[in-house]
Amino acid sequence: MDAFEERTRRCQDRLAAVGADAAVLFPSTNLFYVSGFREEPGERHLFLVIPREGDPAFVAPEMYDAQIRDSSWVQDLRLWADGEDPTKLVADLADEFDLRGGHLLVDDTMWARFTQDLRETLPEATFGLASEVFDDLRVRKDDTELAALRTAGEVADRVSVEIRELGEEAVGMTEDELADEIERRLAAAGGDEIAFGTIAGSGPNGAKPHHRHEDREIRPGDPVVLDFGAYVDGYPGDQTRTVVFAGDPPEGYEEVHEVVREAHEAAVEAVEPGVTAESIDRAAREVIEEAGYGDEFVHRTGHGVGLDVHEDPYIVAGNETELEPGMVFSVEPGVYLDGEFGVRIEDLVVVTEEGCERLNDSPRTWEPL
Amino acid sequence: MDAFEERTRRCQDRLAAVGADAAVLFPSTNLFYVSGFREEPGERHLFLVIPREGDPAFVAPEMYDAQIRDSSWVQDLRLWADGEDPTKLVADLADEFDLRGGHLLVDDTMWARFTQDLRETLPEATFGLASEVFDDLRVRKDDTELAALRTAGEVADRVSVEIRELGEEAVGMTEDELADEIERRLAAAGGDEIAFGTIAGSGPNGAKPHHRHEDREIRPGDPVVLDFGAYVDGYPGDQTRTVVFAGDPPEGYEEVHEVVREAHEAAVEAVEPGVTAESIDRAAREVIEEAGYGDEFVHRTGHGVGLDVHEDPYIVAGNETELEPGMVFSVEPGVYLDGEFGVRIEDLVVVTEEGCERLNDSPRTWEPL
Repeated sequence: MDAFEERTRRCQDRLAAVGADAAVLFPSTNLFYVSGFREEPGERHLFLVIPREGDPAFVAPEMYDAQIRDSSWVQDLRLWADGEDPTKLVADLADEFDLRGGHLLVDDTMWARFTQDLRETLPEATFGLASEVFDDLRVRKDDTELAALRTAGEVADRVSVEIRELGEEAVGMTEDELADEIERRLAAAGGDEIAFGTIAGSGPNGAKPHHRHEDREIRPGDPVVLDFGAYVDGYPGDQTRTVVFAGDPPEGYEEVHEVVREAHEAAVEAVEPGVTAESIDRAAREVIEEAGYGDEFVHRTGHGVGLDVHEDPYIVAGNETELEPGMVFSVEPGVYLDGEFGVRIEDLVVVTEEGCERLNDSPRTWEPL
Repeated sequence: MDAFEERTRRCQDRLAAVGADAAVLFPSTNLFYVSGFREEPGERHLFLVIPREGDPAFVAPEMYDAQIRDSSWVQDLRLWADGEDPTKLVADLADEFDLRGGHLLVDDTMWARFTQDLRETLPEATFGLASEVFDDLRVRKDDTELAALRTAGEVADRVSVEIRELGEEAVGMTEDELADEIERRLAAAGGDEIAFGTIAGSGPNGAKPHHRHEDREIRPGDPVVLDFGAYVDGYPGDQTRTVVFAGDPPEGYEEVHEVVREAHEAAVEAVEPGVTAESIDRAAREVIEEAGYGDEFVHRTGHGVGLDVHEDPYIVAGNETELEPGMVFSVEPGVYLDGEFGVRIEDLVVVTEEGCERLNDSPRTWEPL
C-alpha cells in the first residue's frame, strides 16, 4: 500500500474513534500528509473529502487534473472549470458520502471563505477541526521524516557556521543584506525553499522576537539574533544563534547570553519520554527567572516541528502532553531587553527512548571569531 | 492623518453601509492595508478588531508588543502571554465594543481554528466575510500602489529578458536550476521576496498550469513556460512568457503560441472603463475557441493583483463587475496539450481613463535568440 494511502487509513480509524463522519481538507500540510499532493492555499475551491469509510475524493479546479493524478494515490477527482459553481460538486459529494447531517472536521488552516461556504452548502452539518485527528497522527515522526529533519538541521548548521565566519565583513552590512546572504547560502548548502521569514535582528531590533530584517546597518558590538532554516524534502530546519561579529558587546550582554545558554541546556537535558511538554518550558524558565529576567522571556520555550514549522507539541505552560519517542520540537528560550538587544538560542530536538537527540550542533557561543 | 488610519476610516464607513458591527482581521493583507502592521498567519491569536465607530484595538501575543507599536498607528494593544487564554481578551473586547450579538466580518483567509474559536467565544454573534468591505476599498489602486506595481513589473521584465538571453546555456539545466536562476536574478534586479512559487515548466510539464519546477532537464526544442515575479514595497510582479531556448519546437507549437498571443492581444485591447470583467475573458476565449483549442484553455483569463497576488477583479465568465480606472489585473490566456506542452502569455494591466496601461513589456515572442 502507498505510504500516503496508509496514512489515510489511519486517519479514517481516528475519524471513527472521535465520532466524526469525514475530514474536509484544503491545500495544507494535512492534505499533503495523506494524499501526496502539495499546493499552497488559494482562492479556488480545492477540497479532499475523506469519509470515515471508503475512498476519499477530490473536488478540484480542472486545471489541477494532471497534477493531482501525477502526485496522489487518490484518483477520484470531481473537477470544476473556472466560471462554474464548485459548491454543487461539494453538495453532490456530501449526498454520495451521506454527510449532509454529519460531523465534519475541517482543516485548522482552512480559510473562512471556504468554511462559510461549507456551512451554507451543508446547513445541517456540524463542524470541528481536523487537528482532532491529525495532531495525533503527525506528532510522532517516522524514519523518513526524521531523515529529512536531520538533513535540514545540517543545512542550517552549516550556514550558521559560514555566516559567523563573515566576522568583520558583516559589520556595515544591512540586516537585509545579511538575510539575503543567509538565504543564498541555505540554497547552496542543499536547502529547498526558505522555511520561514529569515530573522536577522541587530542591536535593539533583536529585542523584537518576530522582527525579520530591515535596512539597519550592523555595527561593531551589535548582538545579532540569527534565526533561519530551509526545507529539505518538505521538512524545515529552524535554528537560532545570537552572535557578535566584531567589537565589544553592550553592557550586560555577556551575562544575558550565559543565562539563555544555561536555560537552553537545562531544557534540552530535561527532555525524555514520559515528562510533560510544560516541564521542559519550566526547566528553561526557572533558570531565566532565577537570574531575574523572567519578565523578559516573553514567549513559550518551543514548538513542534514537522510538515508545519509550528505544530504540536507546543512547549508551553499548561501543555500536559507527555513526550514520546519520535516527537520533534524546538528549544528556544530568549531574553529581550526593549531598546537594547535580544538573545535567543534554539535547537531542534527529537525525543528518543533514552532522552533526546539534537538536530542542530553548531557552536552556541557568541564571541567574535 | 496617517494613510493607514484614513483607510481604516473608509473601512468603517463601509461597515456602516453594509450593516456590519465590526471587522475582525487576523494576519492578512487586509490587516496590513488598514494598520501598517505586516505578519504571516500563525497559530497564535492575533486579531485587529475594527468597530463601526471609534478606534480599533489589537488582541496580540505579548511578544509582538514593540513590533506593532513601531509599525502601526493603532496603539490600543491587549496583550496575552504564552500559556494564557487569549479568548478572554477577545470576550472582554466584545463587551467593550458591544459586539456580543453583533454581525462580525472576519478576514476571508482567517484560519478555521480562529473562526471556530470566535463562534465559541461569541455564540450570539453572526459572521460574514471581510471581503464585503475590503474588496471595494482595495480594488482601485492609488498612486503609491501603482508606482510599486510598475516597478515590480519592470523587475519581472528585466529578468524575463535576461533569462531568455541564456539561450543554449539553458539547455541541460534542470527546471529547479532555472527557477533558482530566475529567483536570484529577481533579487539582483531589485525585487524583495518572491511573490509566488516560480514556474519553470518544460516540455510536457508546461501542460500543467500550476506545475512549479522539478529535476527535469531542459532539452533542445522544449517549450518552457516561465511564470514569475517578486514583490516591490509589498506589491507583486506576475508575468508569463513561453519560450524555446534552442532547437526546433514540437509540431504544432508555433501555431498554438500564435493563437495564445493573439488571444492575449485581443483581451488587452478590450480593456477599458465600463466593460465587464467577463467580457475580457470572452475576448481571449473567442480567439482560442475559433482556433479549436477551447477545451485546452482550462482556466480563467486573469485575476486582480494588489497586496494579494490573486484578488478582485477576477477575469472570468460570470463576473459582471464593470472595470474602473485604477483596477489592476493579469491577462493570461493559455493552451495546455496534455503530455506535450503548454503555452501561456501573461501581462499585468492597469485600467486607465482611455483604456489600459501594460505593466509588462518584455518581448512576447518565443523563438531562440
